[in-house]
Amino acid sequence: MKSLLLTDECVIDLLKIDEVINAVESAFREKALGRVQMPCKVYLFYDSGDLRVMPCYLGSLGVSSVKVVNSHPRNREKGLPTVMATIILIDPETGFPKAIMGGTWITAMRTGAAGAIAAKYLARKDSRVAALIGAGMQARTQLMGLMQVMDSLQEIRVYDISPKAEKGFLKFFEENYGDRCEVIVAGSAREAVMDADIVVTTTPSRKPIVMDDWIGDGTHFNCMGADAPGKQELDPRILKRASKIVVDDVEQAVHGGEINVPISMGLMRREDIYAEIGEIVAGLKKGRESDDEITVFTSTGLAIQDAAAASLAYEKAVEKGLGLYIDLISEQLKG
Amino acid sequence: MKSLLLTDECVIDLLKIDEVINAVESAFREKALGRVQMPCKVYLFYDSGDLRVMPCYLGSLGVSSVKVVNSHPRNREKGLPTVMATIILIDPETGFPKAIMGGTWITAMRTGAAGAIAAKYLARKDSRVAALIGAGMQARTQLMGLMQVMDSLQEIRVYDISPKAEKGFLKFFEENYGDRCEVIVAGSAREAVMDADIVVTTTPSRKPIVMDDWIGDGTHFNCMGADAPGKQELDPRILKRASKIVVDDVEQAVHGGEINVPISMGLMRREDIYAEIGEIVAGLKKGRESDDEITVFTSTGLAIQDAAAASLAYEKAVEKGLGLYIDLISEQLKG
Repeated sequence: MKSLLLTDECVIDLLKIDEVINAVESAFREKALGRVQMPCKVYLFYDSGDLRVMPCYLGSLGVSSVKVVNSHPRNREKGLPTVMATIILIDPETGFPKAIMGGTWITAMRTGAAGAIAAKYLARKDSRVAALIGAGMQARTQLMGLMQVMDSLQEIRVYDISPKAEKGFLKFFEENYGDRCEVIVAGSAREAVMDADIVVTTTPSRKPIVMDDWIGDGTHFNCMGADAPGKQELDPRILKRASKIVVDDVEQAVHGGEINVPISMGLMRREDIYAEIGEIVAGLKKGRESDDEITVFTSTGLAIQDAAAASLAYEKAVEKGLGLYIDLISEQLKG
Repeated sequence: MKSLLLTDECVIDLLKIDEVINAVESAFREKALGRVQMPCKVYLFYDSGDLRVMPCYLGSLGVSSVKVVNSHPRNREKGLPTVMATIILIDPETGFPKAIMGGTWITAMRTGAAGAIAAKYLARKDSRVAALIGAGMQARTQLMGLMQVMDSLQEIRVYDISPKAEKGFLKFFEENYGDRCEVIVAGSAREAVMDADIVVTTTPSRKPIVMDDWIGDGTHFNCMGADAPGKQELDPRILKRASKIVVDDVEQAVHGGEINVPISMGLMRREDIYAEIGEIVAGLKKGRESDDEITVFTSTGLAIQDAAAASLAYEKAVEKGLGLYIDLISEQLKG
């Protein structure tokens, strides 16, 4: 009776973005079909950060997991990641912890997959230019997701307040996609998003950093940064102009997604949300319907995305014989 | 940046009951002093069982953990434990997962410690006979706890519907306490509890198994079995007779403790609860005040008990150089 231990490093080798996209898309669909258990995230609050606990069960897929993930903004000063995640994958049949995994890369990949899925259903099929505001780790998996689903992309623009982050992103881009399309480091957020077809924001901003008058019709936004009350990245006028505001989960989006500040200020209502992304995936609601509509996807990050990606990593590790098997649970203790 | 991996087997070697009692007593005290964060347990429901997620933070002790524990009643048929727990110990300063531990033995030991603490404050100092109803794994750690805090004990009686469980308990008793006091395997629950000074119940019963007319004045009860709605072990008339009903946590006890059925039937009210055990530990409420009062402690099991015992196991493992250090979190991924 052994549990599989998978480090982040091991997960990095195992997960391919196309497979994560498929897994996350299935999870979104299951949610829309009402076949998931996903209690609200539970928080602990520390002096220097917080901890979120995210359990879920995808009943028809037989997948269940609990993610434990922190957010400590000052960790960088200590040489530690701001966000570190651990995932326990549970066998629903027996409750046995099948696997314990580093969840940091899984989190980044499933978020990249969410962006990709949103772009697939909501961005213009002929999208040529994608702008990334924020050039950190999340920007890389967002890029991976977009490059997987949008064959039409010819130009990637990137902007970050940190030149070091931009440089790291550039290196990643050249190594992976340098032969496929152009990359431009923009001098400002404005320069990055002007005439872009897809705009992806991955910052921790608490005030709008993309303004309405920079934006043409037909643009699709993936707002990946806002995941807590008070966070926002878009000028609320963009949200007013948008014909479709799509969320991953209505409750989480209202409380912490891109729309949380406009809603709390009375500029928007919950009823202005067009759909959850899973409803579009499942065919219950339509995706983009015309070339000139502005569409916005706001991601807060769901436990079911983690479960889907973690289960995928587990299956692949078993198949390839990777990871370390440990007797975490003692057979002596048959309670 | 390594996390410590501790298996159940390793934890068994590390935890001593006297130290666990001290750690759990501190946790109870902190709760009474309002210095803990302990959100409600979160549940997932599977076809064949359930999963509980128990996060908490003991602020002034700098201890935080998340326990994930299942309950699958039919697991025994598959040769698996009914209950299996995993604990993630978190560093509140950075959110880093300091340790991943098997939590099955920790759960049994912290429950034994709770029973010991309740007996210390609520049982008669001259208690001579303790009766254990239920002879499984939980009964062993209850015995360990009682033997640690009650020097006066001269006779242990045990009863279980399973002769195999009784036999296992007897073996455990002889190996550990055979030279210190008598043990009697009773022919019935009645025979076990008649004239006992302390009665400990550790069964999954859903109807009373200890009746009021068997019980003399001055008895103390540790009801450890009921931890979910519908479970009960004592005749409600015992609860009516008791002058002090003490719980670990009022909310959990009302919903799932020994008093949940009597309360839901209107036989008792929430106001009939005398105190949380932490209030007695902290000196905010009195323990036993006379030789003839009947006292009842009902345990549902708190996340802070797990955190305190897990932290103790971690400290001892570090001190002794035990366990396996793993790079669960990748330093590459500085998000």
